[in-house]
Amino acid sequence: MSSASITVAVIKGDGIGPDVTDAATAAIDAAVAALGLGAVTYREIKAGAGVFKETGRDIEPGGDERAGQADAILLGAIGLPSVRQKDGTEITPHLRLREIYQLYAGVRPVRAYPNGPQRLADPRARDIDLIILRESTEGLFYSAAIHGRAEVIGDTEVRETLRITRATTEKLHTFAFNLARKRKARRGKALVTCVDKANVFESMAFFRRIFDEVAEGFPDIETGRNYVDAQALDLIRQPWAFDILVMENMFGDIISDLGGGLVGGMGMASCAEIGDDAGLFQPAHGSAPDIAGQDKANPLAAILSGGLLLDYLAEKLDRPELADAGLLIDDAVYRGFYERLIDPMEFGGTMGTRDVAATVCRLIGEPE
Amino acid sequence: MSSASITVAVIKGDGIGPDVTDAATAAIDAAVAALGLGAVTYREIKAGAGVFKETGRDIEPGGDERAGQADAILLGAIGLPSVRQKDGTEITPHLRLREIYQLYAGVRPVRAYPNGPQRLADPRARDIDLIILRESTEGLFYSAAIHGRAEVIGDTEVRETLRITRATTEKLHTFAFNLARKRKARRGKALVTCVDKANVFESMAFFRRIFDEVAEGFPDIETGRNYVDAQALDLIRQPWAFDILVMENMFGDIISDLGGGLVGGMGMASCAEIGDDAGLFQPAHGSAPDIAGQDKANPLAAILSGGLLLDYLAEKLDRPELADAGLLIDDAVYRGFYERLIDPMEFGGTMGTRDVAATVCRLIGEPE
Ligand SMILES: CC(C)[C@H](C(=O)O)[C@@H](O)C(=O)O
Ligand SMILES: CC(C)[C@H](C(=O)O)[C@@H](O)C(=O)O
Repeated sequence: MSSASITVAVIKGDGIGPDVTDAATAAIDAAVAALGLGAVTYREIKAGAGVFKETGRDIEPGGDERAGQADAILLGAIGLPSVRQKDGTEITPHLRLREIYQLYAGVRPVRAYPNGPQRLADPRARDIDLIILRESTEGLFYSAAIHGRAEVIGDTEVRETLRITRATTEKLHTFAFNLARKRKARRGKALVTCVDKANVFESMAFFRRIFDEVAEGFPDIETGRNYVDAQALDLIRQPWAFDILVMENMFGDIISDLGGGLVGGMGMASCAEIGDDAGLFQPAHGSAPDIAGQDKANPLAAILSGGLLLDYLAEKLDRPELADAGLLIDDAVYRGFYERLIDPMEFGGTMGTRDVAATVCRLIGEPE
Repeated sequence: MSSASITVAVIKGDGIGPDVTDAATAAIDAAVAALGLGAVTYREIKAGAGVFKETGRDIEPGGDERAGQADAILLGAIGLPSVRQKDGTEITPHLRLREIYQLYAGVRPVRAYPNGPQRLADPRARDIDLIILRESTEGLFYSAAIHGRAEVIGDTEVRETLRITRATTEKLHTFAFNLARKRKARRGKALVTCVDKANVFESMAFFRRIFDEVAEGFPDIETGRNYVDAQALDLIRQPWAFDILVMENMFGDIISDLGGGLVGGMGMASCAEIGDDAGLFQPAHGSAPDIAGQDKANPLAAILSGGLLLDYLAEKLDRPELADAGLLIDDAVYRGFYERLIDPMEFGGTMGTRDVAATVCRLIGEPE
């Protein structure tokens, strides 16, 4: 078992970012320690709306590069509604990181935990366990303000560009099917659904055509196709029927929040953004400045993102034992709900950020 | 009371289109008859995927023009997944009608009926009563395949254009606030929420800026602002907190299906698409070819769209009594659920298309 040191770049960011990041690093440390895998070195990088307000730049000098030099990037939350660019958009250095490091695969798990929060009346909703795979470098976000690609025509009109490339789409769908194989090994079945708007847009028919091509290389995996509007409906009607949903960037942004809502709220929404050479891990929720530093935020999305980070490093560093450490985090959260030991304020419970984190860390240290 | 004859262009379309359109015209006739408002003349226009398959054109010759000559257009459903353009997109003459007649205001009510289908566990979900106002001529749909504006770069990339104009956005937001005034008169309160992605896109910050400007002219109406991803979450968390949600075309497509899901399914999703000089009314659901002609489709979305049509004609023709006829349809559906007289197959009930329609027509004829 190798114990070469692991380096993680940490961007705590704004609002509750620091609160939940501290919880995530504590969980990572607990998991790595439980298996005796050596220490993780964290290198902090200052970035976000707060930094922008002070310095006029959204990340500390050299921050973009230093983030990419680490084995992985852990991020808390970015943005303060009161701090905006002149054009009205917010401060979003993480969108630039997605672009610089081509983090095309946005993995957003949506999972119902036993005794966990539940919004749907149908009891089958307790079986929700799906992954939204959001392309994260192109689509409509090709035109995000930070890239300066919108066409502003005086005060009369603004045009944005949605871009779908074969190169990225092939990688995305291949990622989806590989993920499906991994899940199939664990759960016995896997289904990849292409979510698009192929009835109306050429770009989306293109997206679906590439899906069909890539699918041919994975005859062992079941496939589905759905229009994004119908998918929004189906996620309310029968979310338990889906497994991996792969889609364009803007669609994934909306649908993953919908998914988060189904299983309680964004406080459960973990996220991995993975490229060929880099990975960024962050809760999919916002910075909630109103409760920042008050020990109120639900750190579970960040903690679960820490689990995704370890799983990613297992492959990247070819150290499979790190995947076991990732599973320890997952299992601890699962058991915490199952044994009713976790009760976050976000869902009307009594436990603050540190309390939830400490409970998860204790469970990590006492695996069943 | 004028009784100049009313002319409605009828496009039954594909799949269950004819089934539900017949239900809608029956309900319109019953409502107009109940108040002695004279007869409605229907002029059928053939259009859709079936027509395209036969003739190579998606609407009968002169159909686009004849639709616009009527006082209003009633549409069933369009599209068959098996009939596609060469580029993979479907047959969508209704998108062209939206464009020709600049039907910018897509009104999509989402309402929970007593004893009606319900997906959320929280009992407050029975108070859901909101309207999604979907801009329906520009946004990303500016680039819909039917308009031929995508840029196809060989087999390597496709680009679409999302377009937001000041002219249309001003009209849209003004429509939203006028609708709010109408609702406030009836319900004592009104709230208009601008749903966008102003944190990331210049076009969306522009959309929100125009919202703020228009809002100043309506100081009596409460306003809110929300990002579209957060809105998807909030519609699951607390849909009862919203009233009118105004947004870009593609966002509205997704969010209105989500809304439809909350109150059961698309079989309840009525829709009005309104421009300065024309209005098109259609259920927001698809053509469900698998159950076409089998008396299984839920006609309530089409019937409720008929109510919206009468409400529209009241203003357009300056015949307020037509709004009362529209209310008769609304009330009949409400009472049908309240008294448990309506039980559509869509929600596991026993009543087919004709049975539901006949029940609604009977209730229209026996107002309380
Ligand atoms: C904050 C925002 C820029 C971001 C996005 O739109 O990607 C967020 O909503 C997310 O889902 O990660
Ligand atoms: C069928 C399709 C073209 C249409 C749309 O996307 O507008 C439908 O989904 C709708 O919501 O009216």
